[in-house]
Amino acid sequence: MALIVQKYGGSSVANVERIKNVALNIAKNRTNNKIVVVVSALGDTTDELISLAKQINPKPSSREMDMLLATGEQVSIALLAMALDAINVPVISFTGPQVGIITDNVHTKARIKEIKTNRIDTVLSENKVVIVAGFQGKTPENEITTLGRGGSDTTAVALAAALGADLCEIYTDVEGVYTADPRIVTNASKLKRISYDEMLELASLGAKVLHPRSVELAKLYNVPLCVRSSFINKEGTLVVENTLMEKEVVVTGIAHDLNVAKIGLFDVPDQPGIASIIFNALAKANINIDMIIQSAMRNNINDIAFTIPKDDLDKALEIANNVAKEIDISEIVFDDDVAKISIVGAGMISSPGVAAKMFNILARENINIEMISTSEIKVSCIIKTKDVSKAVQVLHEGFELDKITDQQQNKTLA
Amino acid sequence: MALIVQKYGGSSVANVERIKNVALNIAKNRTNNKIVVVVSALGDTTDELISLAKQINPKPSSREMDMLLATGEQVSIALLAMALDAINVPVISFTGPQVGIITDNVHTKARIKEIKTNRIDTVLSENKVVIVAGFQGKTPENEITTLGRGGSDTTAVALAAALGADLCEIYTDVEGVYTADPRIVTNASKLKRISYDEMLELASLGAKVLHPRSVELAKLYNVPLCVRSSFINKEGTLVVENTLMEKEVVVTGIAHDLNVAKIGLFDVPDQPGIASIIFNALAKANINIDMIIQSAMRNNINDIAFTIPKDDLDKALEIANNVAKEIDISEIVFDDDVAKISIVGAGMISSPGVAAKMFNILARENINIEMISTSEIKVSCIIKTKDVSKAVQVLHEGFELDKITDQQQNKTLA
Repeated sequence: MALIVQKYGGSSVANVERIKNVALNIAKNRTNNKIVVVVSALGDTTDELISLAKQINPKPSSREMDMLLATGEQVSIALLAMALDAINVPVISFTGPQVGIITDNVHTKARIKEIKTNRIDTVLSENKVVIVAGFQGKTPENEITTLGRGGSDTTAVALAAALGADLCEIYTDVEGVYTADPRIVTNASKLKRISYDEMLELASLGAKVLHPRSVELAKLYNVPLCVRSSFINKEGTLVVENTLMEKEVVVTGIAHDLNVAKIGLFDVPDQPGIASIIFNALAKANINIDMIIQSAMRNNINDIAFTIPKDDLDKALEIANNVAKEIDISEIVFDDDVAKISIVGAGMISSPGVAAKMFNILARENINIEMISTSEIKVSCIIKTKDVSKAVQVLHEGFELDKITDQQQNKTLA
Repeated sequence: MALIVQKYGGSSVANVERIKNVALNIAKNRTNNKIVVVVSALGDTTDELISLAKQINPKPSSREMDMLLATGEQVSIALLAMALDAINVPVISFTGPQVGIITDNVHTKARIKEIKTNRIDTVLSENKVVIVAGFQGKTPENEITTLGRGGSDTTAVALAAALGADLCEIYTDVEGVYTADPRIVTNASKLKRISYDEMLELASLGAKVLHPRSVELAKLYNVPLCVRSSFINKEGTLVVENTLMEKEVVVTGIAHDLNVAKIGLFDVPDQPGIASIIFNALAKANINIDMIIQSAMRNNINDIAFTIPKDDLDKALEIANNVAKEIDISEIVFDDDVAKISIVGAGMISSPGVAAKMFNILARENINIEMISTSEIKVSCIIKTKDVSKAVQVLHEGFELDKITDQQQNKTLA
């Protein structure tokens, strides 16, 4: 009997009918497996709660925000437990704090430090389905925390790791991981398998299908992940340790991310530690910096540009302006009309010229590249938002991702 | 500096504007007092959650119901904390489980066993307003429980008792305790003071203004209660230890309760212990039995009639039918078209003939009395639902409650 952790996202439980369908799917899987279910808040609940909060306080404290948002998943677990009970599946639900998901104290963006599994172990041994609220936990001081957007994926993988589960299934509104966003590239291919590293890059680069932290965690604890549709019973995409795909296919997928803003600092004094002052101040506010470019020094003065999530722009500009008063920065500019486009593939490591090919394809279409960043298995470029669709399409075609065959994919199954 | 516990009901926080008004009221009171706030779920949230649950499972488990319903108050505390923060009042919110409200394990109808006040004490000493979710707690085994309808009043009084508060203010949508329901008796008078015992009877008898358990608790721990409007800044009704009012006024108020159903058991064998079999079975299901009448024995056979809350009728009939199979009961009948009407007043103890006067007044209007029950300070009658309005009006007039003057009330302030 295998132990499977299943995660159902907000769209999978958006209404009464869908909750009942999820219950049926769990019941079906339960005949051969022990099941732990992680569930998100119903549909748009989280957004609605945030909007309500902002009507009351434009800058709500992050502690109270966690207090508010944690209710969303608590509603889901109770309703899903009732739906299972209605079809005679023995079940019990737990909130994150209740079941012992211990996090640090960074409210609204907490990280899981530990999961106490004794309560779940006991209930599983009683042959019950366990439902756990995603996205939430508590600090050792008993404060309620949330893990940030997409945190339910992280809860699911962390639980799978802590429980030593055989598989972690992520049920969502798409059928799996595609070579590019199918809404932009109509002939995008669904991947049968992808490596943790590739998925990590894709997720980090804006493919919405999995939260990057969850992939990181899955890789760290070697938890086999499966991304599949909660609406259609079809094979999804398996995310596992390195596959052989890189030998067949250089580029596995194209990702794009519209949640990007660029900040430029002009005439930053070229003294040791200046960059660390700026980036420490942003880190303290829990703002993730993505790309950083420091221009060549002229006259002991630098220009620095960096990108951040668009949501953090106001906060980042406020911080940058405060820092600018302390050190001698002449001008701060920003651009929130940019996006990031990336190619990802473990095969790049052994294939020189992939980045150059990407730049050529974009140049041919007159798409201007504003910033570039590379890793061993990806190349990312910042471009104007208006160019995103075109860029995804021409890169998908240029790297022949529409021609990934089932045969190629099957070959990769070692 | 006094310590005041303030409780705001669901209608007081039904929307963003009202939440902001509550915040302003707290801020005003805070200048001279330490404030602990207990708050209910927003408006009709609890009813909406129940309706959602029933769509998924007509008989949801009470544990999962508590999991679901507890979210309502958690939303309220977070939003109210945000509203106070927005006007620069230092504040922190706590769920019931978080702040150490420990209950028994009777889900959906739990009773408070203990309140750990150390966390609240610490925060009060930091000069912060403390907001606590009403209606909820946890068992020693960390299970989330709710206290049943009106439980937020109970939370407030229990907190006031545990903290040794100087006053417990219950803010609601009426201006205080009236001699009868003002929607039925237009010239009903607002009482300035009422004793715990009288309030307890009124609350138990259907006056919705306070939950009877909260009054019981207030009496037990001698917590001064004040019932007042959250919309209009007017003196409310003070509920305290025996006032002198009984010397002036025999009957203090008329209560009525529509949430009543009557069950009749015919031809119950007259053997010792039979009644206890029936009523134990009902008690096990947490059904509160109100009046019980056992008819005079004839041929070793009894008829038993009793009343219960209308909400519990289906469950009670099911239990009664099961019991009927074991012991020899010939027929079970019920009537859910009845109501209870009561007169309350500490002055009755020393005034004989009050009950007789009540029966006379009702008889004069051809209102049939189906069951009667009395205590030292009240007389209750079961009548047909259609007669309720008329009965309240004629009793209010008959006992001259419209003539309670401010002078009489002021005299009672010892």
